[in-house]
Amino acid sequence: MSEDHAAKLWDLLIIGAGPAGLSAAIYAGRGGLSALVLDKLGPGGQVAVNHLVENYPGFPDGVAGLKLSEEMGRQAEHFGAVMEVSEVTGVEIGDGRFTLSTEQGTRQGRALVIASGCAPRELGVPGEREFYQRGVSYCATCDGPLFREKDLIVVGGGDSAVWESLFLSKIARRVTVVHRRDQLRAEPAVQKQAFAQPNIEFLWSHVVTAILGEDSVRGVRVRHVATGEEREVPAAGVFVAVGVVPQTAFLPEEIARDEAGFVKVNAADLATSQEGAFAAGDVREGAFRQIACAVGDGALAYRSARHYLEGSR
Amino acid sequence: MSEDHAAKLWDLLIIGAGPAGLSAAIYAGRGGLSALVLDKLGPGGQVAVNHLVENYPGFPDGVAGLKLSEEMGRQAEHFGAVMEVSEVTGVEIGDGRFTLSTEQGTRQGRALVIASGCAPRELGVPGEREFYQRGVSYCATCDGPLFREKDLIVVGGGDSAVWESLFLSKIARRVTVVHRRDQLRAEPAVQKQAFAQPNIEFLWSHVVTAILGEDSVRGVRVRHVATGEEREVPAAGVFVAVGVVPQTAFLPEEIARDEAGFVKVNAADLATSQEGAFAAGDVREGAFRQIACAVGDGALAYRSARHYLEGSR
Repeated sequence: MSEDHAAKLWDLLIIGAGPAGLSAAIYAGRGGLSALVLDKLGPGGQVAVNHLVENYPGFPDGVAGLKLSEEMGRQAEHFGAVMEVSEVTGVEIGDGRFTLSTEQGTRQGRALVIASGCAPRELGVPGEREFYQRGVSYCATCDGPLFREKDLIVVGGGDSAVWESLFLSKIARRVTVVHRRDQLRAEPAVQKQAFAQPNIEFLWSHVVTAILGEDSVRGVRVRHVATGEEREVPAAGVFVAVGVVPQTAFLPEEIARDEAGFVKVNAADLATSQEGAFAAGDVREGAFRQIACAVGDGALAYRSARHYLEGSR
Repeated sequence: MSEDHAAKLWDLLIIGAGPAGLSAAIYAGRGGLSALVLDKLGPGGQVAVNHLVENYPGFPDGVAGLKLSEEMGRQAEHFGAVMEVSEVTGVEIGDGRFTLSTEQGTRQGRALVIASGCAPRELGVPGEREFYQRGVSYCATCDGPLFREKDLIVVGGGDSAVWESLFLSKIARRVTVVHRRDQLRAEPAVQKQAFAQPNIEFLWSHVVTAILGEDSVRGVRVRHVATGEEREVPAAGVFVAVGVVPQTAFLPEEIARDEAGFVKVNAADLATSQEGAFAAGDVREGAFRQIACAVGDGALAYRSARHYLEGSR
């Protein structure tokens, strides 16, 4: 099968099988375009590891992230999109086509949807991976409601850390924001909100050095950045919000990115700086990193890619 | 309950309970904002009349439009959004708030999401209004079952016209699709299904000039767009599927619209020309009128409204 994939000139190559990529694939397949979806892990992206998705419209009782991913994958295949588990390591542009390098050879297509998503930036401390999904989370909107009336830690000081703290403060008993500096980087209006919230506390000038627990998280060890003094702070959950890393290192310079690595797009049609290449979902600049928005992006990227293909035939 | 609705200053008023409005409501409720959703008909919008939704990601076997709508409505209520069946007839802006006129009194909110969607476009020919609900319909799913073993006309050539034809072909004796062009605009996969259906016929390059009947419809008069030749085609029912009109007549001039009536927005955050007011889904300019895109818009409008609210406290 892999040889067929290599021989073929696909209408649409889709990098990433998260909700954005799969939505584009569903639309492309149903719309009669030949579409190949490449993902190093298979259907799901970050969604697949989310044990309960509560906010994707249509599932009032929530849906397991893995199940939702599999259903989207099945839907894309039902309409004829082809899925391949393969990591894309490079993209070449020329002769009116996109040529992807993968571990299984090259793949060629006439249009490209980049939906490779983001990975959360990790703290890189002991316990972080061990307790992932057992108290360690990278998404307050996703997992916050599981910690009703608990004590929580948020790590970070940027907009998303403060946003997450505000969100969590409506749910949790107490939220402690651990930040390495002595002031926030978040927007003043958002900061003001957080300072006004009685159950949000700030632990300034501290870094988390370890996440502690047995079966699940029971707290964190923190260190004062100036004095070096260490102590433990108890908590049932730790929300790490020190940023995300867009997965765009494999892209060529023709596809422009912002300083953080997000693909620059025209928000109205998701066109990138390279004609015929579109970006959808978390990987693109300005995204609200939610499944609902990713599927919308996927559908829109399909429409734009289709317009491009029809115009270039 | 209605009096409570009137007395309250809501964080967010949402006009329209289609997928865009309900997605905004799910996010708002889950995010701790007080949100009131107003719709003259209840949950669903145009989706509710769609007998099978095939392309909303997450439902590989398709889902009935009515069921999907109800599930989204239930999800919004689960997170605390309040639904009210009430038509919004006007919007006043002043004193940092939005005041909606409804048939049950006024409703006030600090931010606004306009998700009022679109209504079917009329042909504007003699007999159309006269025979509405007596043979003339804009919804095959709603009215199709009334025409068992009859001959029907569908007017239009886009996706929805072809979908309605397919649906009606399972019920009616024969379906004739009258289209002004000599080919369909519908998606290739959908076209293919229609061409394969033995009791669907196509009357190309014709327009309907009148709907004929006495007590109820007995046929249509059609005209060939090139030759001008007119003739009558007998039918017991006429299903009109020639596009949509945005439902924005109730909006004040502060909220700018394009020539067709769609709300102008900044595609990046869905902000309208009026601070604090956002537009989501089919009603906004540039929308790809798909459920996937509507739910993405709803979530994004929530984020923008939330930023606005946080900044304006």
